[in-house]
Amino acid sequence: MADSTRFILVNTSHAGNVGAAARAMKVMGFTDLVLVQPRFPDVLVQEETVAMASGAADVLVRARVVPTLADALDGITWACATAMTPRDFGPPTFAPRPHFESLVGTGHRVALVFGPERTGLSNEDVYRCHACLSIPAEPAYGSLNLAQAVQVLAYEWRQALGGYAVQPRTAEPQWADGVAVQGALTHWQGVLERIGFLDPVAPKKLMPRLNQLLNRAQLTQEEVHILRGIARAVDGRPQQK
Amino acid sequence: MADSTRFILVNTSHAGNVGAAARAMKVMGFTDLVLVQPRFPDVLVQEETVAMASGAADVLVRARVVPTLADALDGITWACATAMTPRDFGPPTFAPRPHFESLVGTGHRVALVFGPERTGLSNEDVYRCHACLSIPAEPAYGSLNLAQAVQVLAYEWRQALGGYAVQPRTAEPQWADGVAVQGALTHWQGVLERIGFLDPVAPKKLMPRLNQLLNRAQLTQEEVHILRGIARAVDGRPQQK
Repeated sequence: MADSTRFILVNTSHAGNVGAAARAMKVMGFTDLVLVQPRFPDVLVQEETVAMASGAADVLVRARVVPTLADALDGITWACATAMTPRDFGPPTFAPRPHFESLVGTGHRVALVFGPERTGLSNEDVYRCHACLSIPAEPAYGSLNLAQAVQVLAYEWRQALGGYAVQPRTAEPQWADGVAVQGALTHWQGVLERIGFLDPVAPKKLMPRLNQLLNRAQLTQEEVHILRGIARAVDGRPQQK
Repeated sequence: MADSTRFILVNTSHAGNVGAAARAMKVMGFTDLVLVQPRFPDVLVQEETVAMASGAADVLVRARVVPTLADALDGITWACATAMTPRDFGPPTFAPRPHFESLVGTGHRVALVFGPERTGLSNEDVYRCHACLSIPAEPAYGSLNLAQAVQVLAYEWRQALGGYAVQPRTAEPQWADGVAVQGALTHWQGVLERIGFLDPVAPKKLMPRLNQLLNRAQLTQEEVHILRGIARAVDGRPQQK
């Protein structure tokens, strides 16, 4: 199912931001980009835009350029402004996470609306929106780059929509069971006694401490073999097959 | 309290990414940046770096350049690699949100480690880390720009650490109470009867429907005044003070 979320960039100045925004959208599975009166009418085909879009050129190809935000809102039933500037009145301000959670399942067709880099959205455009989203940030600094804001909101909205699975990058570990771990510990206990590190008459808490260390480490079967191989080597015996 | 989280960029190629990463960190309240053998040794003072850092030049000034990841991990007790490439073995892979939630309150000094733009982290560097973080993304595309990945993880980690408050951008609304809303409805009911839109003999569900609309709209006191002013104007009476 094609996702219906729209990303709207109003009066964007920097070609790099348009390209980076396209990539930020696509990596989160969104493809509907609309530009409202960008500074450069040919921004979608500028070299820097295409370079920053990386593999998201198809988002640029499908993007539309329209003259006003009102034109960009066709089919949209819930428009979220990103706005930092205080104003007399306007839609209520929310952090993205709780707002997106409340928006899931409402059936709304959602747009995320981003203003110009320097000035942010005009009052007139904010009034067209249903909610203001504010990415919680360090109060003394507080301003995300445009493309970074697109990335954070695309990520948060995708998470709210159910997200993507994380692919493990390694094979499933073959965990060692309790018998294997205790076998390694017993093996090492003998070695430690023979090398004079562990006094069997006054063992203190050495073995339970090592047991805790190994439990915390969550040994694999391979690692049990390694630890027992080292124990054998310490004992001076040739390593057995 | 200064935050102890460290951001480590390994073999970064693009000056713009270093600058954008500094800004992405600072906007989330992080300031400890370490570069491991960047492509350009002077990357911290290059023009593009400083331009992309915007107001985060202080992060660049304080940043260190070191020769290996091992050098960058002084004081760090939990290193999170960001890694996409499958490998034979290595730390377990997590989505950032649940991993960060489990990391809060452990007392660890955390580093987030980012690899080179094209190739990602080497196996040797991944093995130095305690966890692999994978930002869940569209499987068919799937690769965030380096600075975007820094922004998403800085944001998620800050959220896990308790986050920042969202500042409302407008004054607290003066909500209209039930009496005010019913007053406006009764006023409009009379107007609608006089203009022939509402038949008092067969009112159907018009007034309850308008009541629901107004409840959903959550009227302010100011808006009640506006709606009653319009009702008066429809009636042809001059607007009263």
